[in-house]
Amino acid sequence: MRILYHVPVSAPCHKVRIALGEKKLAYEMKLEKIWERRPDFLAMNPAGEVPVLVEADGKTLCGSQVICEYLDETQPENSLLGTDALQRAETRRLVEWFDHKFYHEVTENLVGEKLMKRILRLGEPDGSAIRAGLTNIHYHLDYIAFLTGHRTWLSGDFCSLADITAAAHLSTIDYLGDVPWDRHPEAKDWYARMKCRPSFRPLLAERIPGSPPPKHYDDLDF
Amino acid sequence: MRILYHVPVSAPCHKVRIALGEKKLAYEMKLEKIWERRPDFLAMNPAGEVPVLVEADGKTLCGSQVICEYLDETQPENSLLGTDALQRAETRRLVEWFDHKFYHEVTENLVGEKLMKRILRLGEPDGSAIRAGLTNIHYHLDYIAFLTGHRTWLSGDFCSLADITAAAHLSTIDYLGDVPWDRHPEAKDWYARMKCRPSFRPLLAERIPGSPPPKHYDDLDF
Repeated sequence: MRILYHVPVSAPCHKVRIALGEKKLAYEMKLEKIWERRPDFLAMNPAGEVPVLVEADGKTLCGSQVICEYLDETQPENSLLGTDALQRAETRRLVEWFDHKFYHEVTENLVGEKLMKRILRLGEPDGSAIRAGLTNIHYHLDYIAFLTGHRTWLSGDFCSLADITAAAHLSTIDYLGDVPWDRHPEAKDWYARMKCRPSFRPLLAERIPGSPPPKHYDDLDF
Repeated sequence: MRILYHVPVSAPCHKVRIALGEKKLAYEMKLEKIWERRPDFLAMNPAGEVPVLVEADGKTLCGSQVICEYLDETQPENSLLGTDALQRAETRRLVEWFDHKFYHEVTENLVGEKLMKRILRLGEPDGSAIRAGLTNIHYHLDYIAFLTGHRTWLSGDFCSLADITAAAHLSTIDYLGDVPWDRHPEAKDWYARMKCRPSFRPLLAERIPGSPPPKHYDDLDF
C-alpha cells in the first residue's frame, strides 16, 4: 500500500489527497510532525516538508507538484493536466498561480499565522499579515470567477490539477472560516462543484483537536 | 521567431535562456519593465511576471517551469527532465528545491535586496536579509557538493533542468560577487562545467548599466 506522509489542513497535502482520489488510488496516511525533523524522514525528503508519497515498491516522491506530475505520468487515465501540450501549460500556469502566488498572498498569511503558529508555538499571529491575507483573497476569488465565466473549469473543459490546487488552498482557509463566499457567488458555485466530488470528501472529515472548523465546512450546500 | 520577455540578471529568465540554448532553439529577447505593469503584457501574463515566451505561432507560455516543461514536451530531443518517470520526479524535486527553497533562502535575500531594490527604487537594502542570504548559501553549496559526490550531474548522469535551475540562480548571485566559491571547491567544479556549456555563454555577456559584475563573472577559469 502507498503511504502519504502529511500534516492536517495543509494545502499541498490536500492537493495530493484530491489527486489520489481523482486517480482512484488507495493510500494510507501517516502524520509527520515535520517540526521534529525526524532523521528517517529527512533521509526521505532533505527539504523536511510534506507531502511525501512512498509507493508500494518503495519509490519515494517529495512535494505536491512532483507527486502529481508522477501520478499523471504513471497513471495516465483521467489526466490531471490535459493531453495537449498547450492545455498542459495552461493547467501548470494556474497550478503555479495557486501554489505560489495565492500561497504567499493568502494561505501563508491566514493559515500560517492563525493555525500553524499556534500549533508550532511560534508566538502571536501577526495582525498585519492576517489583514493582508483577508484583503488579497478577494482578488483571487475574482480571478476564479473570471476563469469560470469563460470556461467550465479553471484551466479548460475538465476538472484539472488547477482546480485541485485552488480548491486545496481554499479548503485550508475555509477551515478557518475566512473565505468570504457571500461576496463571491461565482467562486462559491465552482467550490461547491469541487466539494461534491468523491475525491474531496475525505478532506471535509479532517479535524485539528482544539481547532474545529466552522459549521459550514463539511456542508455540501454551504 | 519566438520572443522571450525578460529582465536581466533574473534567475527564472536565465533558466529559460539556458533551456532554450540546450534545445538549440533561436529566440529574440525583449526587455519587459514589469514594474510598469503594461496592460498588453498583463493580458499575456496576468501574474505580471517574466519570463513569458511567445512562440512564432503566437502560443504564449508564462513562467519558467511552465515554459521548460512545454519545451521538453514539444522538443523531446536532449530531454531536460529525463525519460523515466522516477528520474523526472528527481529532476523536478531539485528544480523545486532551487526555484523555491533556494530562491527564498538565498536569491531573494541577495539579488532582491541588493539589485532589485535599487533598480526599482524600493529603498535601502535590508542588512539582516543580506546576512541571512550570505549564511544560507553555504548549506546549498554543500548540498550541490553532496549531490555531485554521488552523481555526475545534480539529478543523475546527464545535465538536466535541475542543473540549469541551480546554475541560473547561482549566476545571478555570482553577478553580485556573493558566491563563496573558494570555500566550496566541489560546487565550483560543477559550476565551471555549467559555465563552459554553449547554452550558458550568452548570460555571461549580460550587463546592468551602473552595476557591473565582478571580474571573474564571465571568466570560464574563475
